[in-house]
Amino acid sequence: MDKLSSLTRFKASCPYLGKTKTATLRTLSTSSSTRFPSLSALTERATKCPVMGPALDVRSKQIVAGYASVAGKADVEKIHKDQGVFPPAGATVEMCPHASAARAAARMAEDLAAAAKLKARGDAAKKAKAESAAAAAAGCPFHQKAAAAAPKAEAKPIKPKVPGTFNYESFYVEELDKKHKDASYRYFNNINRLAAKFPVAHTSDTKDEVEVWCANDYLGMGNNPVVLETMHRALDKYGHGAGGTRNIAGNGAMHLGLEQELAALHRKPAALVFSSCYVANDATLSTLGTKLPGCVFFSDTMNHASMIQGMRHSPAKRVLFKHNDLEDLEAKLKQYPKDTPKVIAFESVYSMCGSIGPIKEICDLAEQYGALTFLDEVHAVGLYGPRGAGVAEHLDYDAHVAAGESPEAIPGSVMDRVDIITGTLGKAYGAVGGYIAGSDDFVDMIRSYAPGFIFTTSLPPATVAGARASVAYQKAYVGDRQLKQVNVREVKRRFAELDVPVVPGPSHIVPVLVGDAALAKAASDKLLSEHNIYVQSINYPTVARGEERLRITVTPRHTLEQMDKLVRAVDKIFTELKINRLQDWKALGGRAGVGLPDSSDNVDPMWNDEQLGLHNGTTPKTLHNGQNAVVDPTAVTVARNRFNTLLGKIEETPAAHFAGLKMKTGSGAPRAAAEDVQIPTSPLEVAASA
Amino acid sequence: MDKLSSLTRFKASCPYLGKTKTATLRTLSTSSSTRFPSLSALTERATKCPVMGPALDVRSKQIVAGYASVAGKADVEKIHKDQGVFPPAGATVEMCPHASAARAAARMAEDLAAAAKLKARGDAAKKAKAESAAAAAAGCPFHQKAAAAAPKAEAKPIKPKVPGTFNYESFYVEELDKKHKDASYRYFNNINRLAAKFPVAHTSDTKDEVEVWCANDYLGMGNNPVVLETMHRALDKYGHGAGGTRNIAGNGAMHLGLEQELAALHRKPAALVFSSCYVANDATLSTLGTKLPGCVFFSDTMNHASMIQGMRHSPAKRVLFKHNDLEDLEAKLKQYPKDTPKVIAFESVYSMCGSIGPIKEICDLAEQYGALTFLDEVHAVGLYGPRGAGVAEHLDYDAHVAAGESPEAIPGSVMDRVDIITGTLGKAYGAVGGYIAGSDDFVDMIRSYAPGFIFTTSLPPATVAGARASVAYQKAYVGDRQLKQVNVREVKRRFAELDVPVVPGPSHIVPVLVGDAALAKAASDKLLSEHNIYVQSINYPTVARGEERLRITVTPRHTLEQMDKLVRAVDKIFTELKINRLQDWKALGGRAGVGLPDSSDNVDPMWNDEQLGLHNGTTPKTLHNGQNAVVDPTAVTVARNRFNTLLGKIEETPAAHFAGLKMKTGSGAPRAAAEDVQIPTSPLEVAASA
Repeated sequence: MDKLSSLTRFKASCPYLGKTKTATLRTLSTSSSTRFPSLSALTERATKCPVMGPALDVRSKQIVAGYASVAGKADVEKIHKDQGVFPPAGATVEMCPHASAARAAARMAEDLAAAAKLKARGDAAKKAKAESAAAAAAGCPFHQKAAAAAPKAEAKPIKPKVPGTFNYESFYVEELDKKHKDASYRYFNNINRLAAKFPVAHTSDTKDEVEVWCANDYLGMGNNPVVLETMHRALDKYGHGAGGTRNIAGNGAMHLGLEQELAALHRKPAALVFSSCYVANDATLSTLGTKLPGCVFFSDTMNHASMIQGMRHSPAKRVLFKHNDLEDLEAKLKQYPKDTPKVIAFESVYSMCGSIGPIKEICDLAEQYGALTFLDEVHAVGLYGPRGAGVAEHLDYDAHVAAGESPEAIPGSVMDRVDIITGTLGKAYGAVGGYIAGSDDFVDMIRSYAPGFIFTTSLPPATVAGARASVAYQKAYVGDRQLKQVNVREVKRRFAELDVPVVPGPSHIVPVLVGDAALAKAASDKLLSEHNIYVQSINYPTVARGEERLRITVTPRHTLEQMDKLVRAVDKIFTELKINRLQDWKALGGRAGVGLPDSSDNVDPMWNDEQLGLHNGTTPKTLHNGQNAVVDPTAVTVARNRFNTLLGKIEETPAAHFAGLKMKTGSGAPRAAAEDVQIPTSPLEVAASA
Repeated sequence: MDKLSSLTRFKASCPYLGKTKTATLRTLSTSSSTRFPSLSALTERATKCPVMGPALDVRSKQIVAGYASVAGKADVEKIHKDQGVFPPAGATVEMCPHASAARAAARMAEDLAAAAKLKARGDAAKKAKAESAAAAAAGCPFHQKAAAAAPKAEAKPIKPKVPGTFNYESFYVEELDKKHKDASYRYFNNINRLAAKFPVAHTSDTKDEVEVWCANDYLGMGNNPVVLETMHRALDKYGHGAGGTRNIAGNGAMHLGLEQELAALHRKPAALVFSSCYVANDATLSTLGTKLPGCVFFSDTMNHASMIQGMRHSPAKRVLFKHNDLEDLEAKLKQYPKDTPKVIAFESVYSMCGSIGPIKEICDLAEQYGALTFLDEVHAVGLYGPRGAGVAEHLDYDAHVAAGESPEAIPGSVMDRVDIITGTLGKAYGAVGGYIAGSDDFVDMIRSYAPGFIFTTSLPPATVAGARASVAYQKAYVGDRQLKQVNVREVKRRFAELDVPVVPGPSHIVPVLVGDAALAKAASDKLLSEHNIYVQSINYPTVARGEERLRITVTPRHTLEQMDKLVRAVDKIFTELKINRLQDWKALGGRAGVGLPDSSDNVDPMWNDEQLGLHNGTTPKTLHNGQNAVVDPTAVTVARNRFNTLLGKIEETPAAHFAGLKMKTGSGAPRAAAEDVQIPTSPLEVAASA
């Protein structure tokens, strides 16, 4: 593995390591058998270096495993002592370049170690220790001596089974090395979101709790009481799996009911549910591109991977147009005959930058040039519009309020003009699965031809029931959507006050620009290990190189105290890691929409003051730690009534299912009653505490 | 729509319509405005015609909707009376060509009608009635008069939005018409499998119950008490959705635990879970084919759609080899240089014919020619091998029994020699989701590169918990697998006695050959409408034309009484519809493996007598109606212990979750205790009745 080049790259972004250290680093990194080079001299700066540790830690499983054995503060102290490492005056063990990264890494490594322990019956522990030590020695000057004493890890021979044949195993290793080399190799954090403590999760250690600020359970519907109640009931009645494809024993009233619910949500004649919206996008676009004769796709450059795959999986031509650029789109549409089948594929909310597509204007162009519009509302359904149907609904807010629960289209409305809408049940609705909505014959054609729909086991009845309860609840209650946006405004406002750079946008996404892969990873690791805050860093290939960020998602269930903590922690880490502030980006000419000379850093939010109820004081109030979240009783009744036929009418809440499910917020001690404490209004909550 | 050609085609397979009727049929079908042609003459034969009715009924939604209005016996009688239709002496209303198909169709139509009712607020009922009548008139001589009196259905104008642009809506209609024309258009039956009455389900009417004989919940694990218990607990603790991709907040201990469980099941170093096995196969094969330089796929002609898609979604060459034909495979492997990367993609159990791939022999060839082996065990995991790891495990049955729960490979065993195993959680494990298992670096490479894995919300924690409980339970208890095979033998034996043709095979699949699309659909409809038995007919493109079949899946939970009823019903319908028996196929030279001159109709089953415990009397006994199914207490404890850390150790069963979940079998009255009644041994059952 090429440690040198990555270390050299990190050096540039490291505020602690000066140019004079380059030579030392080079020696250190190119040879693992080198003598321990001027340790105390290096220690002076390197012990304080927050970049090098995390940088090393992403190198390989072995190094992560290595850190596992030195994760605790006591362990680090002991090793330093054993190895004669003495921190400079005033420095504490926390300043060791590995200590903080080690704690974060330890969370991952614990799983690896646990798995390894289970896999090897006999000498697992001994082998793991040897490997750890050897790995640590390879990358870490602090642990080299200890490693030298440990037996060499057995190198796994990678040979083809038969000489002369292709060496598959070494090929896999080469492909993985590429990921390690460009720092795009991903370690999955072990995050277990707790229903009763939302937005808190435990890590691999069930007692180690962190606040989650990057999940896509945007409204906390994954633990909404009526969702869970419905699922418990559906599980008891219909069991777990669907037992077949939609064609063979896997099509039931729950599936049909959800599709009817979604069609009505978008005021379209029909909808079709898939295993995921990845599959929905892939299957639908590939089927369109295969079936429509001579089809040409027009695809926004920021489109999601699922749409790109879908288009690629068809023989149709794919023409890219610049992100949200109508001029560029029109210029490209113009180049094809009017009667050529065309599909404009785009999104409403782009999830990594928070921008919103010009839906109405794209519909205008589509009409003019005879194109179908394919709109991905994955990051918008549940979150925009009075009923949660997405941005297309939001653009005619009042008309949709007036139309109420009618499933009929509002002629000429933006949502009516969009031909195909795709959405997910896995984000704002807190469930899993995806769907398309459109005309009867369009949906029927996809249903009849898309292999990704036809040849797969359908979603479990309880899953689709939970999803439907969620959609129905959110159709009937706008408060979660409003409070989410209020909280988003607050977090953005606070970051702006502290000069923390947020990519400007009208949506709920709060992308904090870091602009460097190693720094973004380091910031994410520090948030987790030092502040118990989980925000995944977003690196290439999800965003462009140089545009790495912390993508923060704010929910209506995050409390003011949690926001305080988040904003303070990010500010502190920006200082510690010397990450560019907004003013720095301005000075540099801007990046990723931040601090550009020709643009404002303020973008009008999609939800205006009136829609948020700010004009008349009906806005829901941000929660404090210890307060119960609002569960709207009317919406609960609406959701329950959807299942009267299949699951029976509920007269009162079965308390057993809700033990501990009070939707209490925050991880701190309950706050004394104050003026702004909201009275729980849900019958569920009352029942839960009975 | 071209009714003539389809009617002419059906005529050939219709035992009631002689050649003399062709002219009449032609007149009847080409013009819907024709006079009612010699009704009483036609009635004599046609009233008894069981083919024409169903044949017409698959023609379009409109016709199905038409049947909906005449679904009941009383309705049929009334219409006949109104129209002056008098059945010949001795004929009952049930002999009306439409009556039986109508009842089946009505089940589907009810949903359509319900949806329509909800969609249109005002005149839905009137419009539906008019459409029904008009549609009935178009295809059905019995209902034409009534239709003539009804107002014409409003024809929906299908025009492009802007003149000169492509007409998308009429394109969809054309594509759907193709499906209608070749009878491959699919109507989904509304089947809601009831956990407490497995294998019984209700249809769109919750009081209309049917026995399901075609689901892929092969062992009834979808309602296993420890599975449901685990899911209830996981739902309460972790809520519904995962809240993100595996990389961003959607990776938890439940996911890691399931992957560890699956890796250990297959004694492979690693496993990776996907939304479905469709996605697992698609993502893995497309990634291999894209990454491996110059890769060539060798694909069995009977491979599942997901594998075919995966290979097609890569630039790699795909070479087909004849189903299970080692000679053909070797001849094709030989044509490529030894060091060319090759992947042999095949299955263990082919689900539509029940054949089993020669895994060991394919491994021999793979080794010789330097190919990777990619084995789809989707229809085998949970069902073969002492621990349910599939056919690859089954082939070294005793060695795997001896190795017990070790996660280490058994060197040289078939399962060890297979490079990549894919499986599903959605069939025998009664859950949802799919997975791959293989070497660490292989799995890590797919994890790192496959967009279908990376960019999708992960499965809900409760879902993966339920799946893991199921896998763990089945690892520890072989009885369900044994009893399933005992019951499969019994059903096959009974069909053989009655000369009902079953495609011979060594697996658990019981494909009853019908050999004609319309007849297969008619048989399926009659089973549903007249016998309350649901067996989906399998037509093109799932099987080749002329090889249409009823694919029956027998579970350990089907009772002797249910088997009796199934076999008698199939036998009766074969007589009524004059479907070819085994002897007929023999006379015709055989088809689809049935009655071939050069092959035996008896194939040794994969599970031998000893493995089934027949040699020492340890075989579980087939259930009778009213008996409780066995829930193995040891396996329950094993499954529960997997969740001690995350969900807490269970000392006793929370009874609330199991109310009504006694796993009682059969839909008849409880049978008086007899010698062979099994004593419930599960602590869950005891608790459930407490």
